[in-house]
Amino acid sequence: MSRTREWFAPPGAEDGEAVLQFYNSLVDEKVPFIPASGAGSKQITWYACGPTVYDSAHMGHARNYVTFDVIRRVLEDYFGYNVLYVMNVTDVDDKIILRARRNHLVQRYKQQETDASKVAKEIEAAVQAAVSKQAKKQQAMAAQAAAATDSRQRTELEAAVKNEEHKAKQLQQVQEAFAALVAGGATPSIEAMLAVASDQLAEQLDAAHGSEVVDHGIFRAHAAKYEAEFFEDMAALGVRMPDVLTRVVEFLPEIIAYVQRIVDNGMAYESNGSVYFDTVKFREAGHVYGKCKPSSVGNATLASESEANFETSEKRSQQDFALWKAAKPGEPCWDSPWGKGRPGWHIECSAMASKIIGAKMDIHSGGEDLKFPHHDNELAQAEAFFHHDGCRQWVNYFLHSGHLEIEGLKMSKSLKNFITIREALTQFSARQLRLMFLLAPWNKTVSYGETMRAEMRAKEQAIKNFFQNVDVALREGEAKQSQTAAKWGEDEMALSAALQEAQVKVHEALTDNINTAAALEALSGLIKATNLYLAGKQAAAAAAAADGSSVSGLLPAGPQPLLLRKAAAFMTRILSVMGVLPGPSDTPGFGGEGGAASDAAGASYLDAFAMFRDEIRGLSKAKAAHGELLAACDRVRDDTLPQLGVRLEDRPDGKSIVPLLCDGSSCIEMAQHAQCDDALPQLGVRLEDRPDGKAIWKLDDPAVLATEQAERQAAAAEAARRKLANALDKKVKELDKLQKLAALPSEREALADRYSAFDEAGEPTHDKDGTLLEGKAKDKARKDLEKARKVREPLTKKLAEDPNALAAMEAEVAELTAQIAAMQ
Amino acid sequence: MSRTREWFAPPGAEDGEAVLQFYNSLVDEKVPFIPASGAGSKQITWYACGPTVYDSAHMGHARNYVTFDVIRRVLEDYFGYNVLYVMNVTDVDDKIILRARRNHLVQRYKQQETDASKVAKEIEAAVQAAVSKQAKKQQAMAAQAAAATDSRQRTELEAAVKNEEHKAKQLQQVQEAFAALVAGGATPSIEAMLAVASDQLAEQLDAAHGSEVVDHGIFRAHAAKYEAEFFEDMAALGVRMPDVLTRVVEFLPEIIAYVQRIVDNGMAYESNGSVYFDTVKFREAGHVYGKCKPSSVGNATLASESEANFETSEKRSQQDFALWKAAKPGEPCWDSPWGKGRPGWHIECSAMASKIIGAKMDIHSGGEDLKFPHHDNELAQAEAFFHHDGCRQWVNYFLHSGHLEIEGLKMSKSLKNFITIREALTQFSARQLRLMFLLAPWNKTVSYGETMRAEMRAKEQAIKNFFQNVDVALREGEAKQSQTAAKWGEDEMALSAALQEAQVKVHEALTDNINTAAALEALSGLIKATNLYLAGKQAAAAAAAADGSSVSGLLPAGPQPLLLRKAAAFMTRILSVMGVLPGPSDTPGFGGEGGAASDAAGASYLDAFAMFRDEIRGLSKAKAAHGELLAACDRVRDDTLPQLGVRLEDRPDGKSIVPLLCDGSSCIEMAQHAQCDDALPQLGVRLEDRPDGKAIWKLDDPAVLATEQAERQAAAAEAARRKLANALDKKVKELDKLQKLAALPSEREALADRYSAFDEAGEPTHDKDGTLLEGKAKDKARKDLEKARKVREPLTKKLAEDPNALAAMEAEVAELTAQIAAMQ
Repeated sequence: MSRTREWFAPPGAEDGEAVLQFYNSLVDEKVPFIPASGAGSKQITWYACGPTVYDSAHMGHARNYVTFDVIRRVLEDYFGYNVLYVMNVTDVDDKIILRARRNHLVQRYKQQETDASKVAKEIEAAVQAAVSKQAKKQQAMAAQAAAATDSRQRTELEAAVKNEEHKAKQLQQVQEAFAALVAGGATPSIEAMLAVASDQLAEQLDAAHGSEVVDHGIFRAHAAKYEAEFFEDMAALGVRMPDVLTRVVEFLPEIIAYVQRIVDNGMAYESNGSVYFDTVKFREAGHVYGKCKPSSVGNATLASESEANFETSEKRSQQDFALWKAAKPGEPCWDSPWGKGRPGWHIECSAMASKIIGAKMDIHSGGEDLKFPHHDNELAQAEAFFHHDGCRQWVNYFLHSGHLEIEGLKMSKSLKNFITIREALTQFSARQLRLMFLLAPWNKTVSYGETMRAEMRAKEQAIKNFFQNVDVALREGEAKQSQTAAKWGEDEMALSAALQEAQVKVHEALTDNINTAAALEALSGLIKATNLYLAGKQAAAAAAAADGSSVSGLLPAGPQPLLLRKAAAFMTRILSVMGVLPGPSDTPGFGGEGGAASDAAGASYLDAFAMFRDEIRGLSKAKAAHGELLAACDRVRDDTLPQLGVRLEDRPDGKSIVPLLCDGSSCIEMAQHAQCDDALPQLGVRLEDRPDGKAIWKLDDPAVLATEQAERQAAAAEAARRKLANALDKKVKELDKLQKLAALPSEREALADRYSAFDEAGEPTHDKDGTLLEGKAKDKARKDLEKARKVREPLTKKLAEDPNALAAMEAEVAELTAQIAAMQ
Repeated sequence: MSRTREWFAPPGAEDGEAVLQFYNSLVDEKVPFIPASGAGSKQITWYACGPTVYDSAHMGHARNYVTFDVIRRVLEDYFGYNVLYVMNVTDVDDKIILRARRNHLVQRYKQQETDASKVAKEIEAAVQAAVSKQAKKQQAMAAQAAAATDSRQRTELEAAVKNEEHKAKQLQQVQEAFAALVAGGATPSIEAMLAVASDQLAEQLDAAHGSEVVDHGIFRAHAAKYEAEFFEDMAALGVRMPDVLTRVVEFLPEIIAYVQRIVDNGMAYESNGSVYFDTVKFREAGHVYGKCKPSSVGNATLASESEANFETSEKRSQQDFALWKAAKPGEPCWDSPWGKGRPGWHIECSAMASKIIGAKMDIHSGGEDLKFPHHDNELAQAEAFFHHDGCRQWVNYFLHSGHLEIEGLKMSKSLKNFITIREALTQFSARQLRLMFLLAPWNKTVSYGETMRAEMRAKEQAIKNFFQNVDVALREGEAKQSQTAAKWGEDEMALSAALQEAQVKVHEALTDNINTAAALEALSGLIKATNLYLAGKQAAAAAAAADGSSVSGLLPAGPQPLLLRKAAAFMTRILSVMGVLPGPSDTPGFGGEGGAASDAAGASYLDAFAMFRDEIRGLSKAKAAHGELLAACDRVRDDTLPQLGVRLEDRPDGKSIVPLLCDGSSCIEMAQHAQCDDALPQLGVRLEDRPDGKAIWKLDDPAVLATEQAERQAAAAEAARRKLANALDKKVKELDKLQKLAALPSEREALADRYSAFDEAGEPTHDKDGTLLEGKAKDKARKDLEKARKVREPLTKKLAEDPNALAAMEAEVAELTAQIAAMQ
């Protein structure tokens, strides 16, 4: 292999023994995957960079954790590896400290300040300071980009400049909004002003008063809150919990010992109470620094961005970085051999991962932006720590998930263009979000937008339809043929071949760097083949019915249950493997064997039953009137059961029926009742009419059914509205015309310029000069009159029908207008 | 490799690329497994010899199908292969024809014959004929065994002789039973006689009238009935359905074409309307005959046993076998190029498997007894059929499951020592039977006996306890620690290491010829380690509680949910893989998403609710007395709900409670109520008291709980019985002693040989010679009297208390005896 970068392949990896190829950031190419424990081993260790719990997780985080959840599931549930999945929670970190402190200071400010005009001035100044600072930063970065000679570095710097421009624009918007707020003359409320620009105020407050924050509980509480929220989000996304969870606050002794050993190994030094990693000594000891992203080594911008409190002066070399940071006011700190202080960000991961996994791990994962400096520093630290164990490659496979972009920019906190996971979950189901990620290569950028909703819903629906169609065919097929099967014909051979093709393609896709998009594509092929198969069977059955074969009993064989089950089982397996369906490991144990306690619906029915019976007993003991007893019975039907999603129908024979909780056949029977149209979707039953006149039912998510129903209702309402609007339009035009006619001069007035006298019928008798009309002149006058009358005819006709017609029409228009308004 | 037999290893199989080793009957050793589709492929084809549906399946069949179900699941769900699993149903076969015809003839005989004494004579003759025939067969076989020179062949023949002896013994029993039945003088009923010896009569009837049976429907109905029963049994055993099911009656055209091509290829010949396979020409064409069991080639006994109607005279060579059998009266038949006839047994499988799978398959499975001639003939036929495709090894891996033995003999129909699957399932759960098979190598003999029940129950319970203990720890741990985890300590490191060890061992076990016993052993190790971990945590918690740490809030970390979940997930995965728990493919689809229709329990509650309400409405409308209404309410509590497994309790406040369908916390609360002790097990809730005074609940199979409860009750009853028996024993001994004393001569009589006169107090006054007693002689006489009195003292004392004491004691003994008898 002609690699540009050194990689120590695990034994067996390059002998063709590997099944799986992984894109490894250490070499930026696909390489064979072999566990460190041996080519035949199924044991894998994995350290995943977890969240820094300083704020709500956004969709950029979802991308990362769902992506690695998928890879982990594929390794565990498809390739059969036993993965030890370790994840950290960074709960001691610059960002947490800053955010917790600023939140605290803003709260304090809110409680203390009462003079709104003073606050207005202070906020205005704070915003102005932020704008100036941002402008300077942007200028410096643009200059750096312009000066860059390396094209790759320039590209990166230019992207960074773009980000800075985005930030500047946002700041400008804040400034404008604040100016607008205070422009009115009267000073706005303190709350209103903080709502616009609390971040900028917080920055100023922190600069002035940050050092006064000394209560460690403030930082702990902040981290704990967002850790809990993070795991709630992960659960909502269907992300498996890690096997081991490590927190920085729990590992301080290990971290301090870790730093000490690196110092002892001569690759770190103490400086002014802090400890720095010595990149020069590290290289001299034979190690390579910057394995994940060699091109970024020396990029001071990236290096400094990762750590807010960089003390350049204390370092021996520009590339050195902090392992231990001397205590500062306004920060949590712990005792150490170098005085009070706290761990650097990078050292946390090295120390915790080394403690749980050891001197060699198979997989390390994280977001793309962690490559440098975080992961490169982590690697350097671990190699320095395990130096005397001969460690030259702590991690065999470094996997980095691609970014999530929104409108062409990476979604991030600092760019303030983020959508939290909770927000996204109001727009997409977790399954839809997962499908969105599955459709992109895991190590490439994904674009996020609400415009993808329709596409993801369609993708999800296609899968759901497949299972529902198979389910219907199985119910019918197994009912007819017991569990046996008919002989395979060409149709079955074709579907079986399609299934095998899908199996082969899925395997190829997953072995090729876990190409989930290609795997889904293969599943789509199977869905199409299955639909074709089912359609063919339906057509054959319809044809047989038409030509009378059904009478002779020589029906063509229906869809084959065993084959359909096999296709459905494969679909289920692969979708589970990708986390689209729950996986086998998601519900361990014998299950609720025989246990009734887990049946929540059953319990609620029984509770209702018992309550009703209590009521009847009470009434009977009190010798209540029979009408009261009957009223209680009605309440069960009308209130109690509907709240539990149960429709109860009384029938003339005195036997009520519970139509919606029943076996398949009676559901189908019931489906004929029109009144069930509303109730079925509420219970998760989808009903479809078919050409053969037998409706079928399918189980579905009630929420989905409700949405569809709402859409149908909305469409119907829109049609009704449009009908009314058309009617209104017509009415308005007619009224307009009539009113215009009413505004016209009368026939006599209209003819007055030509005739001077008229008889009782309104016909002109004399021309304008007073001459009696006769002969042709009389004829012409009559025609003139008719013409004039013709013009006003619609009006006169209308008024003949109803003298108040115009007023009535005006009322109609008003009524229609109101109706339409009420519909919107 | 130094193999004694030729095997064409699939490419890659011997280059170390294989993960799995399989015991292959083609070479009688373990060889690497590689799919025919390539070393990297996951596609596998498998043809499993299915049942000949002539009678109910017995445990010998269960052994075969459960064993291969396990291997299939391991290949699919552990090794991730996509298996195309084809199974045939042999529904045209000598055994079916014979059985169906005989059943039919016996039925006809029953309907026609009314003369019992005639029937008695005919049956007696039939039995005698069978005895003579069996004796001849046994003699011939014994001679053959004695003459055998090959030691392996002799061993086989000796085993066969043993079987014949067993059959002879059974026949003798029939003869004796029949003799006893008719010995009474009065001729027994025809039914009674047929119950003893219908098989022997059937044989005679068939010989005389078999050819009169011409309705094909008789054979079809017989096969259909036992096919349906077979798949019901398989479902009860948790055996997955095959992907493709082939029946002989559906494949007649393919079978005939198959035979024709073998004829065309010059390796079969027509003879007298039958077609025979030409083993001589086959060998001449370069093929090997008898690959599965070379040692049996030429064994005429085995060869003839497999086919009842062997026409030696029509064959060119002794080893040739029938592909197509010319029609005989009393058999179903089809048109063919050779006239009317039916396929031979072996050709069916070759033709159907070739049609679905083709010229090369990965795995062929069957019971050990099918090796020769069935599978060897199948192989020969397929190689002859695919001769011009260059096929020299139709099957790459031939797997044969071991026998099931009962009392040292193979369980089989012909030995009449079989236990049907249905019978076995009344003694063992399907899971216990599976565990029994899993604990033996799949290709070795398993011994079956009811004595294994206790062992299998214990194995099952150990697994169940593991899940229940983990479940309890998870409920408590997750409630306390939310979903987060504490830092791992030494205990966690140890359990994690035990889990990894189990993972490695399971992988090694399954790759080594699917050694399920070793895999279960590894899981037992994990169970032990988990129990140790949980016990350690409980001990730490108890110690902390004792020394007051709980007050200070510094409680030791409890069991770690994430780690326990991981252990439970691995257990679940491997148990699913072996079919002990349902596997992922067993429930395809999105599941009953939002569907209420699948909730059978809920539906039954609602039905009951609706019925009750109907009743109340009816009564109210009829203005029934309030007492009737209350009676209806009582019936709900006493009859309706208990039948649904629900206990309803009325309380003084008028609010009844449904205590057993509730969330965890209220169940625990409820568990304090003594009255729930009986009800909980009925609902599948296991309740255990713990040292800390808080009872815990666990879900379990109600049947298991009922059994345990019954055992506890039985143990208590036995203890009570033993107590009574001890009391009885004591009383009987006492009574016996007293009665013996009462039977003794009186003191005076006892002293009569030494003294001749006594005073009023009973003291002797004169010696035997009439001499007055004085001085020492008087003292001696007094002592003699005392001694004599001492002997009778217990009796005299007793009678002093109650003159009727002995009678009273006799009554007590009788009473105790009756009590004990009533308890048994």
